[in-house]
Amino acid sequence: MAPTPQWVKELKPSGPQGHELLKQERAKSKLPVEQLSQFLFTRGGLERKHGILAILEKEKVFYKSQNYFAGRVDRFETALARAKRLRQLTVQHGWSVEDFRAATELISEPGPYGLHESMFLITLRDQGTPQQREKFYKPALNYEIIGCYAQTELGHGSNVRGLETTATWNAEDQTFTIHSPHLTASKWWIGSLGRTANHAVVMAQLVIAGRSHGPHPFVVQIRDLKTHEPLENIHIGDIGPKFGYNTMDNGFLLFNNVKIPHFNMLARFSSVDPQTNRYMRPSSPSLVYGTLTWVRSTIVMQAGGVLARGVTIATRYCAVRRQFQDRDAPEWEKGENQVLNYTMVQIRLLTLLAATYALHFTGKGMMQLYETNQNKMSQDVGQVGSAQRGAGPEETHSGSDLLADLHATSCGLKSLASTIAAEGLETCRRACGGHGYSSFSGIGPWFADYLPTTTWEGDNYMLSQQVARYLLKSARSVMKGEKPTNDTTQILSNFLAKSDIGAAFDVLGRDEDIVAAFAWRTAFLTFEALKHRDEQKKAWNDLLVDFYRLSRAHSQYLVVKNFYETLQSPSLTAELDPETVTVMYKLFRLHSLHTLENEASEFYTSSAVTVRQIQLARTSAVMRLLEELRPHAVRLVDAWDFPDWQLDSSLGRYDGKVYEDMFYRASEQNPLNAITVDPYPDSPVLFKKNDSAQFKSKL
Amino acid sequence: MAPTPQWVKELKPSGPQGHELLKQERAKSKLPVEQLSQFLFTRGGLERKHGILAILEKEKVFYKSQNYFAGRVDRFETALARAKRLRQLTVQHGWSVEDFRAATELISEPGPYGLHESMFLITLRDQGTPQQREKFYKPALNYEIIGCYAQTELGHGSNVRGLETTATWNAEDQTFTIHSPHLTASKWWIGSLGRTANHAVVMAQLVIAGRSHGPHPFVVQIRDLKTHEPLENIHIGDIGPKFGYNTMDNGFLLFNNVKIPHFNMLARFSSVDPQTNRYMRPSSPSLVYGTLTWVRSTIVMQAGGVLARGVTIATRYCAVRRQFQDRDAPEWEKGENQVLNYTMVQIRLLTLLAATYALHFTGKGMMQLYETNQNKMSQDVGQVGSAQRGAGPEETHSGSDLLADLHATSCGLKSLASTIAAEGLETCRRACGGHGYSSFSGIGPWFADYLPTTTWEGDNYMLSQQVARYLLKSARSVMKGEKPTNDTTQILSNFLAKSDIGAAFDVLGRDEDIVAAFAWRTAFLTFEALKHRDEQKKAWNDLLVDFYRLSRAHSQYLVVKNFYETLQSPSLTAELDPETVTVMYKLFRLHSLHTLENEASEFYTSSAVTVRQIQLARTSAVMRLLEELRPHAVRLVDAWDFPDWQLDSSLGRYDGKVYEDMFYRASEQNPLNAITVDPYPDSPVLFKKNDSAQFKSKL
Repeated sequence: MAPTPQWVKELKPSGPQGHELLKQERAKSKLPVEQLSQFLFTRGGLERKHGILAILEKEKVFYKSQNYFAGRVDRFETALARAKRLRQLTVQHGWSVEDFRAATELISEPGPYGLHESMFLITLRDQGTPQQREKFYKPALNYEIIGCYAQTELGHGSNVRGLETTATWNAEDQTFTIHSPHLTASKWWIGSLGRTANHAVVMAQLVIAGRSHGPHPFVVQIRDLKTHEPLENIHIGDIGPKFGYNTMDNGFLLFNNVKIPHFNMLARFSSVDPQTNRYMRPSSPSLVYGTLTWVRSTIVMQAGGVLARGVTIATRYCAVRRQFQDRDAPEWEKGENQVLNYTMVQIRLLTLLAATYALHFTGKGMMQLYETNQNKMSQDVGQVGSAQRGAGPEETHSGSDLLADLHATSCGLKSLASTIAAEGLETCRRACGGHGYSSFSGIGPWFADYLPTTTWEGDNYMLSQQVARYLLKSARSVMKGEKPTNDTTQILSNFLAKSDIGAAFDVLGRDEDIVAAFAWRTAFLTFEALKHRDEQKKAWNDLLVDFYRLSRAHSQYLVVKNFYETLQSPSLTAELDPETVTVMYKLFRLHSLHTLENEASEFYTSSAVTVRQIQLARTSAVMRLLEELRPHAVRLVDAWDFPDWQLDSSLGRYDGKVYEDMFYRASEQNPLNAITVDPYPDSPVLFKKNDSAQFKSKL
Repeated sequence: MAPTPQWVKELKPSGPQGHELLKQERAKSKLPVEQLSQFLFTRGGLERKHGILAILEKEKVFYKSQNYFAGRVDRFETALARAKRLRQLTVQHGWSVEDFRAATELISEPGPYGLHESMFLITLRDQGTPQQREKFYKPALNYEIIGCYAQTELGHGSNVRGLETTATWNAEDQTFTIHSPHLTASKWWIGSLGRTANHAVVMAQLVIAGRSHGPHPFVVQIRDLKTHEPLENIHIGDIGPKFGYNTMDNGFLLFNNVKIPHFNMLARFSSVDPQTNRYMRPSSPSLVYGTLTWVRSTIVMQAGGVLARGVTIATRYCAVRRQFQDRDAPEWEKGENQVLNYTMVQIRLLTLLAATYALHFTGKGMMQLYETNQNKMSQDVGQVGSAQRGAGPEETHSGSDLLADLHATSCGLKSLASTIAAEGLETCRRACGGHGYSSFSGIGPWFADYLPTTTWEGDNYMLSQQVARYLLKSARSVMKGEKPTNDTTQILSNFLAKSDIGAAFDVLGRDEDIVAAFAWRTAFLTFEALKHRDEQKKAWNDLLVDFYRLSRAHSQYLVVKNFYETLQSPSLTAELDPETVTVMYKLFRLHSLHTLENEASEFYTSSAVTVRQIQLARTSAVMRLLEELRPHAVRLVDAWDFPDWQLDSSLGRYDGKVYEDMFYRASEQNPLNAITVDPYPDSPVLFKKNDSAQFKSKL
């Protein structure tokens, strides 16, 4: 590639410059960004992040600039190099779990150790006996063995009970035979398996004397610890390229009657007695669902931050980008208008900005609920959950009220929060116009890597059935006259008590009435569904669409409620000045009223609000909130405190030097510009490779 | 990579097999697939496609199997090789324009000649004088020069009038100086420019004696015809990786006072008189918008087929994939349920299936409208449109009724149709569960390549302003008592005449009432918007959200109307048997009622329907239509007649051998499986590259 000529180097963007515009934006509002960041993340959290960032930025292997150019193999090799370096730094600096998590968030790339560091370790820790922990968990913690969690199969994702891989007990030599009877039994999508792992926790149907006891976890060594070649009668590989997540080696795994010792069945909760050849039942099956609830809660907790990256990038860029004059502006006002001033952009971006805060507070609430439950369970049984993934607790045990509520809440909120985050990122990308499509926007690659979250750990549509089942059950108990035991049964009884006299919520005047209107609609839909199911005896399958709507309504209520409760908490007024508190209330109203208006027909139908209120919510309340929040937009995204190094985005730069950065990356960092082609149809493709073909080499 | 062991080769998916399930599906319905395909595409169209497919399949360069593994540079080189081979085949077989288009649709990959073959050639043809056509168009047709169309700049996309590149007239030597005064003036996103083109049509502000006359097209040679190096004072390159479209070399282009002769300003409609140094005005400015209207109409025409690919893949896969038992099924019915049987899947996929037909018929209607207009204009002025892109005709001339209607229709439908297609593809991908995320699904890459369509040729949000402006103008004329001259003014007067007595549309009983209800809602929203703008004097910017809704409502009406008119046309009953006609009516109702229900609040507010009707539309009509259409689903997608070679999808295979294909591609075609890594944190990344590292080499 020819060097950039001097006359090009001297060019500047036409004025006003991006950095001037962002400076103006920040001057328009007095919102105390640092105070707000501390409220969101705590001072300690922020200090941790910046301390670790200082270490990571010095490491060349983490430089992101070539991420988007390389092919699959090179990208994977780089990702593995990064994972190794991260591990080395963790040891070297003695990082805690929180430090390590902060580092992975800054790096923001799925890595080949990903499933070793999560499901493999957690499962060994929580489902192993002390002896098994000694043999497997300890070396795994030290990376002497590297593992993965092999549950999903080519033919079975959501339905864990349908797994085809078998683990057959051999009484004669006290072993299990792990076997894949069909092609569809092949383990598939297993993170860290394709190239990296040498061990796997394999979920397989336990068969004893011809009788199946359902899926159980087995530790299987799959590759040689020295040569790293697959062991005999084991076939492994990477499953190929994906929409995103290409730095991870999701793999497949087939077994041809592979024997493993009795010791390798993870036996904390269930086991095979080698003397009697009998199956030992789970001691406390309710504990088995803890890990998946934790995983879902984490997804809820992260959703706000995931979306906030897109909102930060799009908001800053829309403040820098100017396009067209205001149609009503006087002729002498010649300058073009910042795109962020257009209401059609505001209604997309500022509502998502409000959603980032709503999701963040909801995620915190969800985590608190999870921890409350964990503490209660520890008191009850003196031990905590394990990692068997699958169907909900209602199906296998009666369960405590709190656990059932936690399970349903985590299902519904996982579904809603990840849908809002994924679809919101695409809205942010599109709000950036053409440049949103460039990888340098930083939104597209992030979106693609996030997208599987809508499918894994429970498909967002499937999960809604768990929520509906829980709400129907709660409604039945309320109908029977049982006393409310939690918020869900409370809102259902409130509705029943008032359903004759009807509702009259002042959603435009009183914030608590907004929350009440969301509760009312949820209760209305719950009893409608109950009528369809219990009175009209409709088939379950005919109600799935209703159930999805019900789950969505319930989860939207939870988000609105969590946001409102955060505003009511004493810590808010203690930590934030009154003006910032006012802005937080406006974000709450914007999120709630915009959601209400989008779901208008359910709110009408339930009589929670009138047609006139909905009309006013949109044409008056929402539009005015957009106008009032507009001056604070850039500071509100600044408060999310994403370092440029993390965002890796030309459009979202803190300093607004959008065009300079786009141009620099395209012109100086683009390996395609190192080749010269022959453009004519009858010649070969390549004219020559230029000297700087080293661009093509990986990092 | 180790060879696949024999025991793996012998494995089959667990039964029932995919090919058996699809056979059953096809046996459930008697829909005559071939007859329906012919109705959609004509017999000639189908024969053309299959003839060309037979030629393309034999060419190794077009094999798609390695598309998803390579890095950007290799993918681009392969794409250029394909473009060259396609050109060679075109010459060799004497392919017509239609043949060539059929070939590119089968190949389904943006290629480096793309903009040469479209905007460059069209602009030279339509905006050049006979002498200019001789000099530029003729060699371009023969690929002796390769060009691009350079309009968009780093700082200016939508707003063409804001372009910064200047073409200054030099009276002294009768030349123009092309110059980029700022970095933001850099041409950006220009297809075929980055590596391929040696010429460009450059849109630049024409400046004569210090006065600007707006953007005009200039032909500029940018690279040496032999060495292919950029000419002096011209800086060119590829703009870097994107979310999709990475086989295209979208480029940037900067000029440092480059002189071109007077001859190079495309002068069919406007020019500079070299004797008087005066600007010659456009002879017929209304003609200038023809090309962009054509481009938008093409997008509308293609949207149905674009979406149908995703719907075909997802529908077939959801008929093969089985997951969970039906909850209400008796215990002895042990088998898992086809995913397509779940109503939550049907409401996503079958409604999109209906949308593919709706969009297809709308696209045909749009093209007819375009051609009617072209014929009328040819009669009027004896010549056809040209290719200046930018603002709508209302802004520069009063325009004929037909042209204004055509312009607004193409804007609104382009926005609606491409939004439905893009978002629908993502819905299809998600309906495939985890495997939808694999590149082998064929949906993700197709989605990513299609996505820019929502932004280019008029951003889908921006375009809605053009529609609103036209509707407001039409409403004003109706208010003044002017007689209706077209369908738009007709529905507005109908509404005015009846608005006192109100509407009573039997949307559940009469198909024509569905169309009338959509018309009513559009008229209602139009007069609402008119009141806000003309009576309440609201700012234009405060109405953008209303305008977007208005445009959407109007375009949804047009889709419903076009679908209904197709059903009413004599050719339908002539070409299709009665049972197929009945199915078409069901698709019409499903699309219309599902849309009506999604937009329920606007239909209520306009009093077009009652709350009760909406409730029934969903809980009764739509759910019943899903059930009735379910048996025909696979045949209805078969009628779209996509060859497997084109879909390039494991999940969407005609024969249902989904799992075998997924496994084959992952296991035998995946270059990542040719490397063996060292998994431990303190070792280097690569253990060894296996012998079959030739996988890494490009095609």
